[in-house]
Amino acid sequence: MPRARDKGIVIGRFAAGPLNAITDVAGVAVGHVTLVEGDRIRTGATAVLPHGGNLFRDRVPAGVSILNGFGKFAGLSQVQELGELETPILLTNTLAVGRAVQALVSHTLAQPGNDRVTSVNAVVGETNDSRLNDIRAGRPTVDEHRAALAAARPGPVAEGCVGAGTGTVAFGVKGGIGTASRIVGPHVLGVLVQANYGGTLRIDGAPLPQRPEHDVDGSIVMVLATDAPLCARNLTRLATRAFGGLARTGAALSNGSGDYALAFSTAESQRRGPGRPPSGTVMGNDEMSPLFEAAIEASEEAILNALFMATGMQGWNAGQGDAEIVAAIGD
Amino acid sequence: MPRARDKGIVIGRFAAGPLNAITDVAGVAVGHVTLVEGDRIRTGATAVLPHGGNLFRDRVPAGVSILNGFGKFAGLSQVQELGELETPILLTNTLAVGRAVQALVSHTLAQPGNDRVTSVNAVVGETNDSRLNDIRAGRPTVDEHRAALAAARPGPVAEGCVGAGTGTVAFGVKGGIGTASRIVGPHVLGVLVQANYGGTLRIDGAPLPQRPEHDVDGSIVMVLATDAPLCARNLTRLATRAFGGLARTGAALSNGSGDYALAFSTAESQRRGPGRPPSGTVMGNDEMSPLFEAAIEASEEAILNALFMATGMQGWNAGQGDAEIVAAIGD
Amino acid sequence: MPRARDKGIVIGRFAAGPLNAITDVAGVAVGHVTLVEGDRIRTGATAVLPHGGNLFRDRVPAGVSILNGFGKFAGLSQVQELGELETPILLTNTLAVGRAVQALVSHTLAQPGNDRVTSVNAVVGETNDSRLNDIRAGRPTVDEHRAALAAARPGPVAEGCVGAGTGTVAFGVKGGIGTASRIVGPHVLGVLVQANYGGTLRIDGAPLPQRPEHDVDGSIVMVLATDAPLCARNLTRLATRAFGGLARTGAALSNGSGDYALAFSTAESQRRGPGRPPSGTVMGNDEMSPLFEAAIEASEEAILNALFMATGMQGWNAGQGDAEIVAAIGD
Amino acid sequence: MPRARDKGIVIGRFAAGPLNAITDVAGVAVGHVTLVEGDRIRTGATAVLPHGGNLFRDRVPAGVSILNGFGKFAGLSQVQELGELETPILLTNTLAVGRAVQALVSHTLAQPGNDRVTSVNAVVGETNDSRLNDIRAGRPTVDEHRAALAAARPGPVAEGCVGAGTGTVAFGVKGGIGTASRIVGPHVLGVLVQANYGGTLRIDGAPLPQRPEHDVDGSIVMVLATDAPLCARNLTRLATRAFGGLARTGAALSNGSGDYALAFSTAESQRRGPGRPPSGTVMGNDEMSPLFEAAIEASEEAILNALFMATGMQGWNAGQGDAEIVAAIGD
Repeated sequence: MPRARDKGIVIGRFAAGPLNAITDVAGVAVGHVTLVEGDRIRTGATAVLPHGGNLFRDRVPAGVSILNGFGKFAGLSQVQELGELETPILLTNTLAVGRAVQALVSHTLAQPGNDRVTSVNAVVGETNDSRLNDIRAGRPTVDEHRAALAAARPGPVAEGCVGAGTGTVAFGVKGGIGTASRIVGPHVLGVLVQANYGGTLRIDGAPLPQRPEHDVDGSIVMVLATDAPLCARNLTRLATRAFGGLARTGAALSNGSGDYALAFSTAESQRRGPGRPPSGTVMGNDEMSPLFEAAIEASEEAILNALFMATGMQGWNAGQGDAEIVAAIGD
Repeated sequence: MPRARDKGIVIGRFAAGPLNAITDVAGVAVGHVTLVEGDRIRTGATAVLPHGGNLFRDRVPAGVSILNGFGKFAGLSQVQELGELETPILLTNTLAVGRAVQALVSHTLAQPGNDRVTSVNAVVGETNDSRLNDIRAGRPTVDEHRAALAAARPGPVAEGCVGAGTGTVAFGVKGGIGTASRIVGPHVLGVLVQANYGGTLRIDGAPLPQRPEHDVDGSIVMVLATDAPLCARNLTRLATRAFGGLARTGAALSNGSGDYALAFSTAESQRRGPGRPPSGTVMGNDEMSPLFEAAIEASEEAILNALFMATGMQGWNAGQGDAEIVAAIGD
Repeated sequence: MPRARDKGIVIGRFAAGPLNAITDVAGVAVGHVTLVEGDRIRTGATAVLPHGGNLFRDRVPAGVSILNGFGKFAGLSQVQELGELETPILLTNTLAVGRAVQALVSHTLAQPGNDRVTSVNAVVGETNDSRLNDIRAGRPTVDEHRAALAAARPGPVAEGCVGAGTGTVAFGVKGGIGTASRIVGPHVLGVLVQANYGGTLRIDGAPLPQRPEHDVDGSIVMVLATDAPLCARNLTRLATRAFGGLARTGAALSNGSGDYALAFSTAESQRRGPGRPPSGTVMGNDEMSPLFEAAIEASEEAILNALFMATGMQGWNAGQGDAEIVAAIGD
Repeated sequence: MPRARDKGIVIGRFAAGPLNAITDVAGVAVGHVTLVEGDRIRTGATAVLPHGGNLFRDRVPAGVSILNGFGKFAGLSQVQELGELETPILLTNTLAVGRAVQALVSHTLAQPGNDRVTSVNAVVGETNDSRLNDIRAGRPTVDEHRAALAAARPGPVAEGCVGAGTGTVAFGVKGGIGTASRIVGPHVLGVLVQANYGGTLRIDGAPLPQRPEHDVDGSIVMVLATDAPLCARNLTRLATRAFGGLARTGAALSNGSGDYALAFSTAESQRRGPGRPPSGTVMGNDEMSPLFEAAIEASEEAILNALFMATGMQGWNAGQGDAEIVAAIGD
């Protein structure tokens, strides 16, 4: 499948990074576990790691923004209060959040140097893949979530029906995982999305000649990474701009759509740990606008990549209790 | 000048109300004071009244949402805490907020039945018209703001370079006041905007053949009215959806853009006053999605109306200290 | 052990309910699972059920307030967005939140009538009992959390070293679970706390003659129930007042203290479910002050009950890796 | 009149600064305008200046926290969004906020170097002095507010019935302006309050032998200054701790009480301006607890100083329309 750019669709005015992926931000790694089993299991998990070290000891600043809080995002208040991430981010399905939290806790407790750790703020985003997945069946398991963490690698990122996007649906067609990036002066900004929402789809503003059904259900989680030295406050503001990209795709922003964005910075000067506060100059408010625009652009393109890279799928509609087929956008 | 619909541009899938204006919501009145004097004064004020009675005694539920808080919106925390409006809303310029607050206070103190009132929460939104207006010159005065309140009428709403939109600029062309409405089942939703922001303009998703300069400065205030019986929480959620319309126009959501939306309900059952709590059934969360989509649509169209109805203007750039001309989008 | 009132300590000016417990609010049930095993396991879980029916089908309005978000409270954003509870509340330890979420999900999926449910917002509060409990050992399990739900009963509530208070420490002495209630006109307000925080203890304002060590670590979760017909906004405001009681006990409100309060209403008129919005009159803002004061009082007394009803305990300090003894306040 | 310490009342465990005032933080200046005229005017304004320079060019980081948003605090959203102060803080009465905003705008526009400034975020707190002041009469005027700015000086701070505390009432006795400070390691923390709220007064935890009437009306604004290098996020958290001191005095936290706290840092490394971002190391989260405790203590003592330094007063009850006498706590 072609990505958006392979089809000639270029969103916005900033250049993409070499991979046009969140992994263009140095150190960021992504891992998927994809579960397609029998007629009913169509789910998975996706891990985003800000860096390859011990994140609990070497934390990164982070901010989270919520457009519509109908969702089960775990770890929210501590990120908002302390402005930092102390675990990787796991994306999963709605009913698996507890297991993903357990996976992040056990992952963190098991890391060398963490043998006396007694508190872990697991950060987990989710969307509901129950239209194609037997979401009540208890998958991914705790171990499957840990496998997504173990699978994380820098470099190219698989998109479409992989990881936490395996069973997602967006705009009535098959959704999935997508990613994109932008170069903003000396900095890189990358976005990875789990697209599972609805509305009236626009491709770079243009409506489709043959619109898919008007389906407004579902949610989206968007993860933004940058190497720009930002404080948690400006990371929160950056995360908010992801909703600009979301809106431009024609999102209905419906009651049931849980719309969350989390942004973190990998800048060395802003790392912190026990007894080690952040140091060095952060970017000022009046330097933020280019990053803000780039966040809108990259978010929009990451969503398009999720749709274009997805393939049609037959699965199990757990809410209705019968088989269901969802076509890909290109079908 | 033609409005967007007169040019064949129809945003979204819901029908517009008879006037395609915020005043399609019964009881809502709008008043403008437009100040164009000499070479330098290009400003004004716009009042939105939820109903024609004594608003301090007969309050309406309200919610406010902020996408980017770089602005001087007055009355915020009390609306958020109490979920209600006790004054009309005034829109003005950035340096006139104090005078607008005074106008709302004196307006309220002077109303019959309010002779023992000792606390007034004035609600004022603003954008910065200093690119065409000598904003440091102290206009509108307190009395000019009161004149906008006194001028408020139901019925057709003047758009473009009027009231608080007199000197505004958006996307590098002349901005202004715009309005639109939508019919959602038995209910009406109306939006009025003061458009003064930037980005890369899209008309119903399509880029302009000849783009205006890339100008990201400025802000927008959006007022939403509905006769649907909503609690303050769902009005806040409704207000948030206005940012979907904003994003679809190509807004850059820049650091300097103060982006605010306030929504109120005129439903009789939800009015409240001293010793009189709201009563009757409110709409449930799962009934909100059509109103949410309509809010996106009407906000987008209100912005386009603001641009299309504006005319080119020469004024005074107060930040640079010289004359400036800004063309209309159709020029 | 005597409760505060048995020692002549009466907080505030409102009368307590018959049980002086959260279960004075009709329909509210509390269940504990207490785990004291070998030298190292000193933990447990406490369930609070707003009513005995199917909470997913018959939801109650709720609001949550955070004084310091250093905690792992699950289900936050959906309560804030939708203003309602769709599961019971589980209190547990910091590293068990994922398992508690799973327990609430499986509990909800298993209830009659929920066989097509595909989304569950599990609400879980936690404090860190690692000073007396081997918190890394994986207890309570998912099943043990479900046992707390199954154990829930109306009537008297066990306090002190039970349930989620089994291993908690407050002000350097043994903490635990405590509860209290107040009669406010025709309504009842009850509070249940999981006390695990620090500062300089005051008993009804008076310092102790012999102060315990100055220990500021830890957290508190406070659950408030009332039969007053309140909207989610005023429930959020009510929850905030619990921090008044917290502060009066001498809380240090330290960096590491996760301080959360959640309030719900059992009023029939405010129940809601799919296709069934809340109806009937809610209490107005200007009727709230007595409930607010009662919430301060009951929270303060619930904390004192937690301390007075707790007994000294030997356990395992998981952060230090050795045995530890914590005395009771009366020792 | 004696301050709390002169009466042997010492709150908490940290030492006070030399003046036990907000001006113990180097550079901070306070100015009052006190208006006592005829039978009816009992009001005024108080200015707090973070430093003596051009604050618009040399901004300080700041955060604001709201316990109960029933108030008209101006400038909120921009402080929250940008994390900084660009004007001094003015405290005034409820109906004078618009005039105070105008005063800060004109003050800022008039400063050397600001001749092209076109946007000013005026920060104004207020409480309602209408029980002793003819609040509807339009005082302080704009010029009187500017006089408070002009009167600002480092050094000892007048307390009690001065400035914005001239006509305030707390716990049914005369309230006013109070201040206190704490030394926390190498840093100083100062608090200034405008006390006008109610509840059941406690002096260092102890109830009064003869309680004043139970009067829960009114509000409080608390301004915190420190020279510790804090980011806006931790300043917001610091401001929140002021409510701990408020609660310990027996505050009823009633519906009508607007309870606001704003904290700023004077640390040179955290100053910022156009094109000049903050630089240097900020304090980490895990270093904050002592400052948090000190904020609780200083806030409690500042409130007691406001009460003890106030004298009884006869004025005009504007809500009732007749004369009223309010005694001092020592009367």
